[in-house]
Amino acid sequence: MHFEEIEYYLEGPLAFITLNRPEKVNSLSEKMIAELSLALDRIASEQQAKVVVLNAAGNHFCAGHLLDEMIDKDPVDYQRIFANCTKMMEKLRKLPQPVVGLVQGVATAAGCQLAAACDLVVASKTARFGTPGVKIGLFCSTPAVPLVRAIGPKRALEMLLTGRMVSAGEAQNWGLVNKVAEPSELVQEGKNLALSVAKASPLTLAMGKSAFYSQVDRPENQAYDLAQRAIALNLTMEDAQEGIKAFLNKKEPPEWKGR
Amino acid sequence: MHFEEIEYYLEGPLAFITLNRPEKVNSLSEKMIAELSLALDRIASEQQAKVVVLNAAGNHFCAGHLLDEMIDKDPVDYQRIFANCTKMMEKLRKLPQPVVGLVQGVATAAGCQLAAACDLVVASKTARFGTPGVKIGLFCSTPAVPLVRAIGPKRALEMLLTGRMVSAGEAQNWGLVNKVAEPSELVQEGKNLALSVAKASPLTLAMGKSAFYSQVDRPENQAYDLAQRAIALNLTMEDAQEGIKAFLNKKEPPEWKGR
Amino acid sequence: MHFEEIEYYLEGPLAFITLNRPEKVNSLSEKMIAELSLALDRIASEQQAKVVVLNAAGNHFCAGHLLDEMIDKDPVDYQRIFANCTKMMEKLRKLPQPVVGLVQGVATAAGCQLAAACDLVVASKTARFGTPGVKIGLFCSTPAVPLVRAIGPKRALEMLLTGRMVSAGEAQNWGLVNKVAEPSELVQEGKNLALSVAKASPLTLAMGKSAFYSQVDRPENQAYDLAQRAIALNLTMEDAQEGIKAFLNKKEPPEWKGR
Repeated sequence: MHFEEIEYYLEGPLAFITLNRPEKVNSLSEKMIAELSLALDRIASEQQAKVVVLNAAGNHFCAGHLLDEMIDKDPVDYQRIFANCTKMMEKLRKLPQPVVGLVQGVATAAGCQLAAACDLVVASKTARFGTPGVKIGLFCSTPAVPLVRAIGPKRALEMLLTGRMVSAGEAQNWGLVNKVAEPSELVQEGKNLALSVAKASPLTLAMGKSAFYSQVDRPENQAYDLAQRAIALNLTMEDAQEGIKAFLNKKEPPEWKGR
Repeated sequence: MHFEEIEYYLEGPLAFITLNRPEKVNSLSEKMIAELSLALDRIASEQQAKVVVLNAAGNHFCAGHLLDEMIDKDPVDYQRIFANCTKMMEKLRKLPQPVVGLVQGVATAAGCQLAAACDLVVASKTARFGTPGVKIGLFCSTPAVPLVRAIGPKRALEMLLTGRMVSAGEAQNWGLVNKVAEPSELVQEGKNLALSVAKASPLTLAMGKSAFYSQVDRPENQAYDLAQRAIALNLTMEDAQEGIKAFLNKKEPPEWKGR
Repeated sequence: MHFEEIEYYLEGPLAFITLNRPEKVNSLSEKMIAELSLALDRIASEQQAKVVVLNAAGNHFCAGHLLDEMIDKDPVDYQRIFANCTKMMEKLRKLPQPVVGLVQGVATAAGCQLAAACDLVVASKTARFGTPGVKIGLFCSTPAVPLVRAIGPKRALEMLLTGRMVSAGEAQNWGLVNKVAEPSELVQEGKNLALSVAKASPLTLAMGKSAFYSQVDRPENQAYDLAQRAIALNLTMEDAQEGIKAFLNKKEPPEWKGR
């Protein structure tokens, strides 16, 4: 599998996807969106990959859509670009493996959306998040979707209406970022977090992640219906039975089965 | 247009609505609710107004409903008052222009709701927010609606069940307030924020605000459906096309078209 | 009413439920779940009880489900356990009285869920919250339901995917805990909070709590429909009428009617 605008490789239990067009601030061109989609499809059936790390080459994470592709086109072209981009973002949610985003420099517009769409985010101390589309006449309506779900309406509207850039520390206080790292330690901290998740049973992670996103935006009684069936099913799995028995017998966790 | 309990005026690109019955702590009488509704209807078609500033005369923002109107009436009267108040609060959401609330002193009960219903809130350092209805036998059920969506269930229930007043700083940490200002600088800080938003294309703001509130309380996949159509449509607008081209050419943003 | 794994007693206007099997870290056995359900049913019709305090004997709050009951069973047994546990958690929401949880030591897995399902939470400074099921092959899917609604998706996923224990202070910053107390003052602080809520009209609390949870996970316009009808009805109650009149006349609140 050959990619031009991203890199994809496995390193032990981790699958890395690296946005790799730093001369364009890793902007989400149509090609990059297509390559990300392909890479995610591939990872979904990649047995070795327990956790995905999504990071970026160069000084910045991602500056959003490639604006050169956003001018002088037919409406149907814009519809296609955003439909494909949305499908790619939704693949992050549907992927059986958890995804850890590593953010340095700027994550703006759809770049901020891409970070928000990861399950967990580690940011460099000097990273900045923003949805400045309003300044060029293009409200960041799609980035708003995962952003407001992470940080709530008042903070999301401040970012959306003013375009103000938010520091890594502020983003952590607001619930968009899980961990802030020294710039020189971003990759190592991100790997450590990903590896700590990768110790778990892949089947448990896949079932749990799927149940989480299925219940999260339903009314609580429906969420409970769904979650109680998920956990009862989880208990019938060999990994859970062996895991609980090892715990009760004060032994190390078992060798987990594959997905 | 003549008002008795509010003031309404334009100042450059800003429309000011000022609650103006300080001797009654700017309580939301039936008349004031009706006047606010009228002013909001007017602003919706006011081309000059790019952003709304909602503030209050005197030492306090608003103490909630006028309690004199809440005793010894028929059930149908209470229903009418709350139906009209709710419609007014919903007009803030549906207004094409963003609304910045400026809060000093107390914002209690429906006054706290009114602040929470603004898109952005700047509060004086000495401002306090509360939903103390529980102390007089009247649970703040309607204020709870925008409050819990801004600050989450545990904090909202603490305010609702205990009636405790919350400081501006705490409200900011909780996501109810965007910015805390020195008391003497509240108006200037509020104007600065409003003016920074007013630099944007009015049509972009209107489309963006509408899309934001349409998607915010839907399941994420439905939210994305809606948002991707909104942003694709936004891109076909002249303001977006000219804005992007100016940005790509490192020029100042264009003169925006009206709404 | 005799219980073996919990204690239940009244103390003035407070009903106490104490998880009381410290030698098993107060794990939620089938018996304990059944006893909690019974106690909650009883409290619902207990006129003296204005507020419920849910606490735990020994050094810890609750370690989640009793794992001895989670091995080598039929799928139908797991389904029953989780269905009964969910029903019990939902009873906390439906109970007319507010519930204050008091957490010391660990609150893990379904123990963390039980804390999150309380209306308000006071935690000892040394308390820790976690959903570490992922480490034993059993993703905490049901605990995730109230957890993510309290703290948002990124923080919930961090707890769920890594199993990391979160301190009381962190849990407070995230919106899971309302108040952090010195270990020696946990019970007194919890009682003080419960007693301050218990001063209110029981009927007002019951109507308000019910309206709150009915509206909280609906779209805002539906939430407003529901809340405006609830508050208009609340106003027709004698407690509200007397409460407002006392306030307007600068008198003490009246003696509240019962539920």
